[in-house]
Amino acid sequence: MPSTLAQEKDKFTPPENLTTKYAPEEVHRYMLDCMTAVGTPKPQALALADVLLAADTRGHFSHGLNRLEMYVNDVRQGVCAGDAVPTITKESVSTALVNGHNGLGPVVGNFCVDLAVKKAKETGIGWVCARGSNHYGIAGWYAMRATKEGMLGMSFTNTSPLVAPTRAKKAALGTNPLALAAPGKNGDDFVLDMATCVVAVGKIEVERRKEKPIPEGWAIDKEGQPTTNAAEGMSGALMPLGGPELHSGYKGYGLGMLVEIFCGIMSGGQYGPNVRRWMQTDREADLGQCFVAIDPTFFAPGFEDRMSDLMGHCRDMEPADESKPVLAAGDPERTHTDKVKTEGGITYHINQIKDSWKLAKVLGVKPME
Amino acid sequence: MPSTLAQEKDKFTPPENLTTKYAPEEVHRYMLDCMTAVGTPKPQALALADVLLAADTRGHFSHGLNRLEMYVNDVRQGVCAGDAVPTITKESVSTALVNGHNGLGPVVGNFCVDLAVKKAKETGIGWVCARGSNHYGIAGWYAMRATKEGMLGMSFTNTSPLVAPTRAKKAALGTNPLALAAPGKNGDDFVLDMATCVVAVGKIEVERRKEKPIPEGWAIDKEGQPTTNAAEGMSGALMPLGGPELHSGYKGYGLGMLVEIFCGIMSGGQYGPNVRRWMQTDREADLGQCFVAIDPTFFAPGFEDRMSDLMGHCRDMEPADESKPVLAAGDPERTHTDKVKTEGGITYHINQIKDSWKLAKVLGVKPME
Ligand SMILES: NC(=O)c1ccc[n+]([C@@H]2O[C@H](COP(=O)([O-])OP(=O)(O)OC[C@H]3O[C@@H](n4cnc5c(N)ncnc54)[C@H](O)[C@@H]3O)[C@@H](O)[C@H]2O)c1
Ligand SMILES: NC(=O)c1ccc[n+]([C@@H]2O[C@H](COP(=O)([O-])OP(=O)(O)OC[C@H]3O[C@@H](n4cnc5c(N)ncnc54)[C@H](O)[C@@H]3O)[C@@H](O)[C@H]2O)c1
Repeated sequence: MPSTLAQEKDKFTPPENLTTKYAPEEVHRYMLDCMTAVGTPKPQALALADVLLAADTRGHFSHGLNRLEMYVNDVRQGVCAGDAVPTITKESVSTALVNGHNGLGPVVGNFCVDLAVKKAKETGIGWVCARGSNHYGIAGWYAMRATKEGMLGMSFTNTSPLVAPTRAKKAALGTNPLALAAPGKNGDDFVLDMATCVVAVGKIEVERRKEKPIPEGWAIDKEGQPTTNAAEGMSGALMPLGGPELHSGYKGYGLGMLVEIFCGIMSGGQYGPNVRRWMQTDREADLGQCFVAIDPTFFAPGFEDRMSDLMGHCRDMEPADESKPVLAAGDPERTHTDKVKTEGGITYHINQIKDSWKLAKVLGVKPME
Repeated sequence: MPSTLAQEKDKFTPPENLTTKYAPEEVHRYMLDCMTAVGTPKPQALALADVLLAADTRGHFSHGLNRLEMYVNDVRQGVCAGDAVPTITKESVSTALVNGHNGLGPVVGNFCVDLAVKKAKETGIGWVCARGSNHYGIAGWYAMRATKEGMLGMSFTNTSPLVAPTRAKKAALGTNPLALAAPGKNGDDFVLDMATCVVAVGKIEVERRKEKPIPEGWAIDKEGQPTTNAAEGMSGALMPLGGPELHSGYKGYGLGMLVEIFCGIMSGGQYGPNVRRWMQTDREADLGQCFVAIDPTFFAPGFEDRMSDLMGHCRDMEPADESKPVLAAGDPERTHTDKVKTEGGITYHINQIKDSWKLAKVLGVKPME
């Protein structure tokens, strides 16, 4: 069933003088209001707003305010249970299988990370798999939640099929992101948070809108041939990290499978080609997700020192192009977070702001100010 | 100190009529003889021979008989302790930190996997990190050892610096392989075993010998620019999986870091740029490695069924090129293993056979027959 929100939104015309920079607290307030307007209890709405705001703050705008409407729609249509509370199906001292009862992804995710951290404090490691979940936003959020407790955190989720296995014509796996966060010294940390495909659909869509070609190796057309035509790529499939077989794209395909194994296969939720199509709301998503916490103090002392030393070494390396310093994973997002702080707000594209204004009107909540 | 073995070998001239196909048992016997000839106790030599033979059987000839001389040399020069037995530095019900005491990589690896499996049987997961290890051959061996017990197995090792971080001019990380093996139905299994760079040095060396160009995106030259010149690539650095930044090569760089975090950083061994150069024997390697076992019965029942179903779906997909069927990770190695069975032996390159014949003479052991 397509979103009726889109149609309802079109009845409203946003004012011309909307600003594009907003205080994070105001964005958070607005997200919370929208979710509670469709009946989501406050704690659940809060969990979602936290993750979406973090995405925008870190510069991953595709996963923040931009995605709010999807969650609103899912809860409004009842295809996602906004009030669900996850339960533990079975557990050991170091593992757990969780049922998300079709709750919001961030509600399930936070529950699972916290459980993994609790287990890791006792036994050095907690490995938690969940089924019955929904789209959980940026994978890094859950990994970083463990790192706040001094732990290494990992997180994985399966997603709707968009990526073609090497040699295949069609998609069978999602963009299946994986994240690893690890603590360094003095608040520094390593945050790898990546989809296991070359690039997200969003990047191809941008080029299509500009009517520009895409680099060969990002996507295949309907016949399974690499294409530089953005529109053909959109109607074909994404390529796994590595791209074509000659460049070992089957490794990216293997990593997409690894994520799926930890998610749908281990948890008993949907997996691979069985996952609901992107933006479809005809049935529950029943996504599988995986959350890991590891306490480094159960291994060699001095983890943070070595972590910072290695990141420091990389950052200090001579770059091939002086204008592009060598980075450690998480640095681009740290830079964006600092920018938001310095500027005192998050700057959105005007179209996003108009869209959010219209959504506010449909839901009867106060637009962002 | 360079290997003196090379010089000693040159004193011998192999006969012209050497055959190239050998029974696996005979290859194994020869490997065992070579290692014991330099003073390696039988159990340790056996562990090494098992892994090397598996590499050749699976078609990864670079990591089998071809590497034997390196281990022989390391033990002969006393830079690797052929008789070492690993010990547990500290442990919990689900984790352990192991000291390999500079023993052979496969001795350390088998010890750690077995420990991880034991812990996983009790708590669902075992996560073991080791330091004081040496080159351990194919990462997949250790992952598959857990799968033989019905478990998911993972293995990671750091290696000598050869891969340049995205944007950097020089190498700072090894080819850092990761492996995940997971059991399917009826003896089928998923075996992802991959270096986190685009291709191994070996592939570039092959093109250089042929005086052919390499595809752009495999390696950079000394200035950090992508090169299609194989010789320049050899004296530059390997690129991480994904290749250039435009194709998200920083994800491969991040995965190389992930492996290093689980290996050198967690174990307290050498890491990143500090790892001994490839083939150098001036000091102990002190490699870091990581081994994980997960018992799927602690999660949703029916793991093997779902695993086989997903692999089956992929294998049955329509390929873009009819002559190239879609595969699951581990399939190329399974095909090669079947070939060895059908042909009743492993077929080597004649140069490898001549080389092994010479090594036999130097060590005073019976050449392969
Ligand atoms: N929930 C879902 O269904 C879903 C699906 C796909 C992606 N996502 C999320 O989308 C977000 C974006 O994913 P992506 O794959 O496009 O990420 P990306 O390509 O922007 O970044 C991937 C990682 O590489 C690091 N990085 C970027 N440039 C670097 C450089 N030059 N050197 C070193 N490291 C560098 C980043 O810090 C990040 O950790 C992620 O948060 C991901 O979790 C979510
Ligand atoms: N110990 C060390 O220092 C070290 C360092 C690097 C590599 N290695 C080993 O070298 C060996 C080779 O590594 P590699 O990266 O060159 O491996 P590779 O590129 O040959 O294969 C990587 C993985 O992809 C799978 N694969 C290959 N083609 C496929 C296809 N078309 N579809 C689906 N899956 C496919 C393989 O089964 C394998 O699991 C590995 O065993 C690795 O552990 C060891």
